[in-house]
Amino acid sequence: MKRGTDLLPDWDRSAAYAAELFIRLREVTSVDGRIMRPSYGPGEQAAHDLIAEAGDSLGMDIGVDAAGNLTLSLAGSEQGAPGWMTCSHLDAVPDGGNFDGAAGVVAGLAAVHAYRQAGVRPPRDVHVLAFRGEEGSSWFNGEHKSHFGSRALLGQLGCGELESARSVQDQASLRDCIARAGFHPERIEAKRPFIDPTSLLGFVELHIEQGPVLVDRGIALGTVQGIRGTLRVRNAACVGAYAHSGAVPQDQRRDAVFAAAHFAAELEHAVQQWLGDGRDVVCAMGRFGTDPARHSLTKVPGELRFTIDIRSLDAGLLREAAGLLPALARRVGGARGVEIQLGPLDSAPPALMDPRLIGAVAQSARELGYETTPIASGAGHDTANFAAAGVPAAMIFVRNQHGSHNPREAMDMNDFSRGAHVLARILLRSDIGAAPVEEAPGRGAQAIRTSHFHDD
Amino acid sequence: MKRGTDLLPDWDRSAAYAAELFIRLREVTSVDGRIMRPSYGPGEQAAHDLIAEAGDSLGMDIGVDAAGNLTLSLAGSEQGAPGWMTCSHLDAVPDGGNFDGAAGVVAGLAAVHAYRQAGVRPPRDVHVLAFRGEEGSSWFNGEHKSHFGSRALLGQLGCGELESARSVQDQASLRDCIARAGFHPERIEAKRPFIDPTSLLGFVELHIEQGPVLVDRGIALGTVQGIRGTLRVRNAACVGAYAHSGAVPQDQRRDAVFAAAHFAAELEHAVQQWLGDGRDVVCAMGRFGTDPARHSLTKVPGELRFTIDIRSLDAGLLREAAGLLPALARRVGGARGVEIQLGPLDSAPPALMDPRLIGAVAQSARELGYETTPIASGAGHDTANFAAAGVPAAMIFVRNQHGSHNPREAMDMNDFSRGAHVLARILLRSDIGAAPVEEAPGRGAQAIRTSHFHDD
Repeated sequence: MKRGTDLLPDWDRSAAYAAELFIRLREVTSVDGRIMRPSYGPGEQAAHDLIAEAGDSLGMDIGVDAAGNLTLSLAGSEQGAPGWMTCSHLDAVPDGGNFDGAAGVVAGLAAVHAYRQAGVRPPRDVHVLAFRGEEGSSWFNGEHKSHFGSRALLGQLGCGELESARSVQDQASLRDCIARAGFHPERIEAKRPFIDPTSLLGFVELHIEQGPVLVDRGIALGTVQGIRGTLRVRNAACVGAYAHSGAVPQDQRRDAVFAAAHFAAELEHAVQQWLGDGRDVVCAMGRFGTDPARHSLTKVPGELRFTIDIRSLDAGLLREAAGLLPALARRVGGARGVEIQLGPLDSAPPALMDPRLIGAVAQSARELGYETTPIASGAGHDTANFAAAGVPAAMIFVRNQHGSHNPREAMDMNDFSRGAHVLARILLRSDIGAAPVEEAPGRGAQAIRTSHFHDD
Repeated sequence: MKRGTDLLPDWDRSAAYAAELFIRLREVTSVDGRIMRPSYGPGEQAAHDLIAEAGDSLGMDIGVDAAGNLTLSLAGSEQGAPGWMTCSHLDAVPDGGNFDGAAGVVAGLAAVHAYRQAGVRPPRDVHVLAFRGEEGSSWFNGEHKSHFGSRALLGQLGCGELESARSVQDQASLRDCIARAGFHPERIEAKRPFIDPTSLLGFVELHIEQGPVLVDRGIALGTVQGIRGTLRVRNAACVGAYAHSGAVPQDQRRDAVFAAAHFAAELEHAVQQWLGDGRDVVCAMGRFGTDPARHSLTKVPGELRFTIDIRSLDAGLLREAAGLLPALARRVGGARGVEIQLGPLDSAPPALMDPRLIGAVAQSARELGYETTPIASGAGHDTANFAAAGVPAAMIFVRNQHGSHNPREAMDMNDFSRGAHVLARILLRSDIGAAPVEEAPGRGAQAIRTSHFHDD
């Protein structure tokens, strides 16, 4: 396998191709100047249409599965051998940016564009995937674990979530939203994987960094060591009693705001203690508020609803937090005559990336003269589901000003070009990733062919 | 002046008349089973129409002033002498009850009904007023001091509030809402009192107790000693920065929810200290929440808006609180890189009731065999504005289960009957209230005649 820096000599043209794709993507998914790509909504579909058209122009095979995931495949020279999957998502949080998700899909197309330009045929199949509904937590209330597309692909999205996840826009069930978008919830709820993940060579996702770490370190690319696990409370309520805000003595009130504030302050205190012990954790209560239909300046607030999002690379810490939250709710609520109803706690374990793949990413970058730095992923990613399913996985983070999940995302195209270039070199390799199939004959694994992704 | 218990021998019939009025009032102001009487809205007008019709049937003079306040007057036998004013309001908080406000107006009509039945002519004019917009804090955002009707009557509602108070329903200015309802904001903004308050004999308001004190004491009637003053923050914002809830390290966040929770917890702590020192105070943050258009489970919350309502009989405490709030906002915000913008602090001083009138209320109740107990009014009332203007004032509280400002208000008609009966006896007296006019010749005061209340 050649590893010289001249492997894709016209890379700059592929980077320019990608920059143009980003501009078109913004154009087709903007509403009143804001990016609007709701999971299973029209903006996400417009992005899928644009990317499918681009893959078609590059001569890739196009497939759409029962969950609406888009697969663009380039056949490798080693027919029937395990292939690469590289992916991201095309939905975005409300009022989000152009790059969170899309960058990973565009990077895969840029790689294929470069292969075409250079007349290089990769040894293994290269499958570029655009997953649906990765930002499901922003677009669907109710009990669910988000990452709808990748989890459906892996046979992990069942009937319960299809019913209980409800659109924040019109309360429709996820099942109805998927059906309305033209796909097949009845095939998803069978919970049969659309592919056998153990037959993949490896899984690589390029993504913008969603925090300020790379900016602070002055380094364009991060090699992700692991993806933080999560503990989430999606729809909690602090329930006291509405009353006149002047007439009821303070000690006879069941004030939901003071109780919830006390709960939040104690939770933050626990987080500070974990951090003080040197443990990895972040925590936010992103939605937190009284009921606009019932609250008033002159009422003791009787109810406040909130969410909690705790993330950590430390599985033990997430277990401790899962014990702490109900205890704290009982203690704070009990002392104030208020009921703090957390509802179900949703958890996803931390996912560790494959050390050999991480090393290959760093090595490829070095060969190209790019600096990298190890980093933890604070955000969840579809990659975590594949890592949990046993696929050797890696992520390449690209430096991004102003964070993500907001309209001020600002990835420099030069930084993106470096990250996509590294990805393009990884996907040309066949000497890393999963052990050869013949070493594990009992598992019945077989190479994924492009046809596996088709769902007519 | 006769004070025997047989003065109004058919009182039970007047109590039944009042009970019927309450039923009709509920009927004409319910929407989908809920009381809907927005200040200067259709429900408030429907209540005014019903009460005006009732006053007309009792042969009272009807007047409506430039602010839409309704006056029903019964001429007394001592022509030109200072008269009584008894009043309350007919608007109600969203999803409120049938009695908060209305009880005081219905009590005045019940008294006049009883005079008619008994053939008794009161010595002094009796003016029953229904004020507009006493619940303005629930129906109007922006800078204002609520109690629109009584403050307009006293020449205290100016151009600034007419513009800055904005309907929570459609953002229309108070000026436009008053004009749309058929009244005359241009006459209000002149800030000339519609009457000379110093020429009144006295001012008495019957009102349901809005807290649990009378229920707890097992006594139907309370003699109000004073009305708590207020310190209010109507539209504060805690402004941090939105960010990804997993990717930004905890110590680099500007989290609006944790900052606001900390602010709330510290404010509550200060309130507990005042209470521990034996001082009178209540405090609520009735509206408290992130922005539904921008918040998300997966975002660090960048903004939280809130209100504060602090009340006390202790003017010194309210001054201390007005110093504490900005200091607390600076301290908590400064420590977290978050800006806590309180906006203007709105204050109204405590109002003390007239000791002789309080005594007369207790005495009348005793003569009728009803027990009373001294009580503080936690809620603000139009009465406070008249007391501040120098009018001898008193309030009669009627026991009420479940508090007010909620649909479960539950005043027993037997308790109401007792309170209204006491009121009816007070309004037959001319030996209490303001000193005779001839004792203060320099003030130019003169008796209010019914015609003073007419507008056009």
